[in-house]
Amino acid sequence: MRTDLERFFNPRAIAIVGASRDLITISGQPLKHLTAHGYGGRLYPVNPRYPEILGVKCYPALADLPEAPDLALILVNAARVPEVLRQCGAKGVRYAIIFSSGFSEVGGGGVVMQRELIAIAREYGIGVVGPNCQGMINAADRVYAGFGSVFNADYEPGAVSMVSQSGGFGFSVMNLSSLDGGLPFRQMVTTGNEIGVSALDFINYYIQDPNTEIIAGYIEGLKDARRLLDIGDAALAAGKPILMWKVGNTEHGQKAAASHTANLGGAMALYRAVFREKGIIQVEDIQDLADYGRAFRCGKLPRGNRLAIITISGGAGILMTDEVIGRGMRMAELAPQTLDRLRGIVPSFGSLLNPVDVTAAIFNDLTLVNRTLQAIVEDPGVDCVALINASLQGELAERIAREIVAGVARTDKPVFLTWSARDAVAPEAYALLDAARIPHYKSPVRCGRALAALSWYSEAKRRRDGRSGETAPVLSSAIARKTLAGKTADVTEHSAKRILAEYDIPVTREELATTKEEACAIARRMGYPVALKVQSPDIPHKTEARAVRLNLASEAEIAAAYDEVLVNARAYNKDARIEGVLVQEMATGGTEAILGVTNDDQFGPAVMFGLGGIFTEVLKDAAFRLAPVTPAIARDMVGEIKGYALLTGARGRPPADVDALVDAIVKLSALAADLKDHVAELDINPLIVMPEGKGVKAVDALIKPRSNTGIAADERGKTRER
Amino acid sequence: MRTDLERFFNPRAIAIVGASRDLITISGQPLKHLTAHGYGGRLYPVNPRYPEILGVKCYPALADLPEAPDLALILVNAARVPEVLRQCGAKGVRYAIIFSSGFSEVGGGGVVMQRELIAIAREYGIGVVGPNCQGMINAADRVYAGFGSVFNADYEPGAVSMVSQSGGFGFSVMNLSSLDGGLPFRQMVTTGNEIGVSALDFINYYIQDPNTEIIAGYIEGLKDARRLLDIGDAALAAGKPILMWKVGNTEHGQKAAASHTANLGGAMALYRAVFREKGIIQVEDIQDLADYGRAFRCGKLPRGNRLAIITISGGAGILMTDEVIGRGMRMAELAPQTLDRLRGIVPSFGSLLNPVDVTAAIFNDLTLVNRTLQAIVEDPGVDCVALINASLQGELAERIAREIVAGVARTDKPVFLTWSARDAVAPEAYALLDAARIPHYKSPVRCGRALAALSWYSEAKRRRDGRSGETAPVLSSAIARKTLAGKTADVTEHSAKRILAEYDIPVTREELATTKEEACAIARRMGYPVALKVQSPDIPHKTEARAVRLNLASEAEIAAAYDEVLVNARAYNKDARIEGVLVQEMATGGTEAILGVTNDDQFGPAVMFGLGGIFTEVLKDAAFRLAPVTPAIARDMVGEIKGYALLTGARGRPPADVDALVDAIVKLSALAADLKDHVAELDINPLIVMPEGKGVKAVDALIKPRSNTGIAADERGKTRER
Repeated sequence: MRTDLERFFNPRAIAIVGASRDLITISGQPLKHLTAHGYGGRLYPVNPRYPEILGVKCYPALADLPEAPDLALILVNAARVPEVLRQCGAKGVRYAIIFSSGFSEVGGGGVVMQRELIAIAREYGIGVVGPNCQGMINAADRVYAGFGSVFNADYEPGAVSMVSQSGGFGFSVMNLSSLDGGLPFRQMVTTGNEIGVSALDFINYYIQDPNTEIIAGYIEGLKDARRLLDIGDAALAAGKPILMWKVGNTEHGQKAAASHTANLGGAMALYRAVFREKGIIQVEDIQDLADYGRAFRCGKLPRGNRLAIITISGGAGILMTDEVIGRGMRMAELAPQTLDRLRGIVPSFGSLLNPVDVTAAIFNDLTLVNRTLQAIVEDPGVDCVALINASLQGELAERIAREIVAGVARTDKPVFLTWSARDAVAPEAYALLDAARIPHYKSPVRCGRALAALSWYSEAKRRRDGRSGETAPVLSSAIARKTLAGKTADVTEHSAKRILAEYDIPVTREELATTKEEACAIARRMGYPVALKVQSPDIPHKTEARAVRLNLASEAEIAAAYDEVLVNARAYNKDARIEGVLVQEMATGGTEAILGVTNDDQFGPAVMFGLGGIFTEVLKDAAFRLAPVTPAIARDMVGEIKGYALLTGARGRPPADVDALVDAIVKLSALAADLKDHVAELDINPLIVMPEGKGVKAVDALIKPRSNTGIAADERGKTRER
Repeated sequence: MRTDLERFFNPRAIAIVGASRDLITISGQPLKHLTAHGYGGRLYPVNPRYPEILGVKCYPALADLPEAPDLALILVNAARVPEVLRQCGAKGVRYAIIFSSGFSEVGGGGVVMQRELIAIAREYGIGVVGPNCQGMINAADRVYAGFGSVFNADYEPGAVSMVSQSGGFGFSVMNLSSLDGGLPFRQMVTTGNEIGVSALDFINYYIQDPNTEIIAGYIEGLKDARRLLDIGDAALAAGKPILMWKVGNTEHGQKAAASHTANLGGAMALYRAVFREKGIIQVEDIQDLADYGRAFRCGKLPRGNRLAIITISGGAGILMTDEVIGRGMRMAELAPQTLDRLRGIVPSFGSLLNPVDVTAAIFNDLTLVNRTLQAIVEDPGVDCVALINASLQGELAERIAREIVAGVARTDKPVFLTWSARDAVAPEAYALLDAARIPHYKSPVRCGRALAALSWYSEAKRRRDGRSGETAPVLSSAIARKTLAGKTADVTEHSAKRILAEYDIPVTREELATTKEEACAIARRMGYPVALKVQSPDIPHKTEARAVRLNLASEAEIAAAYDEVLVNARAYNKDARIEGVLVQEMATGGTEAILGVTNDDQFGPAVMFGLGGIFTEVLKDAAFRLAPVTPAIARDMVGEIKGYALLTGARGRPPADVDALVDAIVKLSALAADLKDHVAELDINPLIVMPEGKGVKAVDALIKPRSNTGIAADERGKTRER
């Protein structure tokens, strides 16, 4: 499939198959928009019913065109699309946008037809965009190839390029951002059902496009989600922020996503993990995109997350503080020298605490804001500055803006403004700021969010740079693969732990007994107390089956318990295949954790960490990452959960062995990568994390082989977000 | 103090003390703005240096005025304010706005001077607004009594009145909402340090003002916070929504609040509790206020929280779904009859699932949207509808809008629109919607938030109506009050539990022993096993002191343990006063909860509920309400915490006795109200909640008497959000 998209965005000739003379309808609009906006290439409407449309010669069929167009727009009914696509192939068309609806999004016959399209596209090597989409606008080259109200407007090309899986929403965003939001777009493409060129293909293209500075995306789900890791990394390396909607995050939202573009909403937890890792900025609202985009256009990144606020309105300062703290920033501690300088500037009834409140005294002394800014920007403990000017307007505003522009030019720290004057009353001031690319916002909340987005991105970039040398270990076990090959039933505890041990994950000492005498002999060797656990692939929940006895401290107790657990196991499931009874050392003390592996349809293998019991099961307090992970990433996971304090000594506990925990996560992630073709799900529940220096120990484990995925989700699976 | 504010907002005469001829400065602006906007009353600038300002006769002193003005604006330096306020009193001025800064917000001498102002205001009965504020605008009567850039604009009076503790921010909100946000304001007042008329006084006035439909507030803290319960209730009864910023919510935000208007940021958890109870809508950003305000102007309230979405862009539908679900709404399940009707309307490649996606086929059939709307609005399972029109514009937009207006007129269910066309390209359509008061928003996220605000308010109103008959029980115990009277030391477990028992809160069976023999005798009567716990006001943390032994099953064990706990207690604190050793039944099984009482400086007594251990201490998962509470409110508290599932049978536990838990919360809240003068803090930790029908039991308790508050916060206190 073609993914060199230069000719897609800037085609030398375009065929419009199914073009209509009714210029209001979907099939009538593209020709109208292309000609109205001055498309410079050759246009070929195709429709046997007309000799011409809008004065452009119309052809009865694709075969009749005088050349092979770079792009075909397909506007016929769903049933006719396969035939037309084949004609495109025969004619040598490079790219086709299929606008028509009625494919996988309607299920049934639509799914079958969509498969046919995929086959045709592959046969002829056509780069297909759609079906079920709204086309594209390349503002830079005046290619308005699509339909919708927003195609009526003219767009000056800007620095943002976007791909959207939703046509209506995507074009609304382009329209509002470009014309009202102060953030003009360059290229915009909608991908609908994505049978060919995918959203990630377009993002990849934008990373390479020298004229695109900021990349935007609206996605419901990605069939090739794992590529987001590499693409996110490339964007970070290129210094091009990705601003992204990922929707369908609630149960109901997901239902809507599935019925809309027939994409499965991939696991949101995994998206979040990749977004964090690669500094991809999640966007909530249309305005956020314009706000964040203008933030990045300032061309400066903060070196840390320490913000200083200077305000003439105390209230706005507090509001911004609440907002940025909630989004991961910190308020800078001003240095004593800075405070000394400020004492000479700020009125006595102002405040030197950060936010620094110079008060409305600005009306009596216009230089107040800028002298304060100068002092603060030079403080080494400040990474970025927000300046809140309330509603200053008119000539006064212009004079202050001029001074701000001069001051900001002398620093490489980002300086943002909250300025609430309406556009109409401070046009000169705003024009000065815009020319200097100083981001300004009407509200302290929006300003704070934009700063936090810049800081989030900058932090990911620093993390990436700091870890450039670190790689995830590659582990491999032929024994493990052999154990799992062809398995369909659950792999029970003892075998599962032996597989864990293959990857150096510490497990409890234990041996399998098949007679009572053997059990006693094992316990004597191992030392009391021990646990007995029936091992059967047909009894995944041993405790529920009462097939477990703990803390057995003598031969007599073991002998009695041995019979008891077997009787209970058979009572629970009379056909259960019993492998034996596991004799296991008791692991006491420490904190219970859960480690897991999932193998997501779109993302592939991932690793999960959470604290035991209610934390993961009731509170869903868990961290996910795509596997494999480096130690630094594993450490991030551990620090990310809400219950983290429990590992560092909360409630008078000794600090837990976080190093050993991190090591176990890293190794489990290497296992997940190595066994990705064999493992559907894996749970270590619990993993006991002992006090510092004492290590970790897997106490129970279960593996669902990959061929076993079809079976209804096991209860353990439900504890993970998916 | 005066709080009949009619003459404040619409004074017959205004004195401007310290008026300046430099019209740019703070003291120069008020006279300029009052005359420029056509104030209809009499104006008296007061300044001995000028014979007139702006052609208005200027007086050397207040005493020289020909009448007592209803309102004085005080613009002199802080040091001169007491003198001027006294002159106001002597002259018979009713209200004064003190603009000057330099009082409690600067600490030290400023605090002393502020106290002097309070005394003067009280002596003369002057209603003081400020100091450290920016004045007010009464757009309805053209009274522009203040300073700032936004005073330059002219405001058509609207339906919203606002009070703000921040001048700069408050006036920015008025300006942007009135002129750009489609939500004109009627009155706006800023209150600064609030030594006289408070924010709640103004809200109370707005509730009674027949021309105010919507009330807005920006607050950092309330000295009379408990009044918010009654005022919120009155607003709810009057059908006037309160849209409120409560800032200073983060640790840093709170610091800023304290230094700004010298208000203590009251406990955010208590604010949240009152907001929820009274349907007060928390506002995050300036735009939210205009968005929510326009939502309420539609004049319809949903009868439930079930939303149906009709969209021509699938993506926008998903985005809105995510947003509203996250804010407590539900997606309506459409009835089979509705689905049947829709099958005849919606194209086959659309979606009948909610969100109902009629697709871009709207371009080929304009009636699609309205026929769908009609079918859905008539579904009894739908409480409100959002219609998403993407960017439809021009004549097409106008025709659709006309049909929508007709359709919406026929239903009493709220119908909101997401319509992303820019104002310039759909002016007729938007004018039609505005005239019909149909709320419309540019983005699905903003539309969803506004709907959720309406739903939140409506839910509180229904809850209030449904509970009109229910009252919180009033309990009273002379014994408890006597026990606590004059106490300064912590009240230890046994006494604390006897106080709980006075209010019918179940406690463990237990008796205090002062000899080993007595302890054994008690245990024999009570039955084994028992716990022994040293009781001393000087050892609040018995476990830490190893002064507790559990599960003692024989006389021998008791005898040994008795000596041991006393030795440990003395080793822990050799001067500890020992009251005796408590012999207590062992409470086993059940779920550990924590109940607590706080006595907030601003809110007064409140009750807290959380699950035991990590839930409250690490995860801060707790619910608060002002005391006393009704059973329905207590049940809300229980259902509100994240760990709630643990009480209803998660992880294979038996369901807990929630009824008994609710009853204990109600009774504890009655205790909190009855003992509000005696109890600073109270903890029941743990309260064991037994399985259904088996009740609850307080196992340990501690009371800090109110006179004891000065002592450094105990560790237990820290577990509560304050």
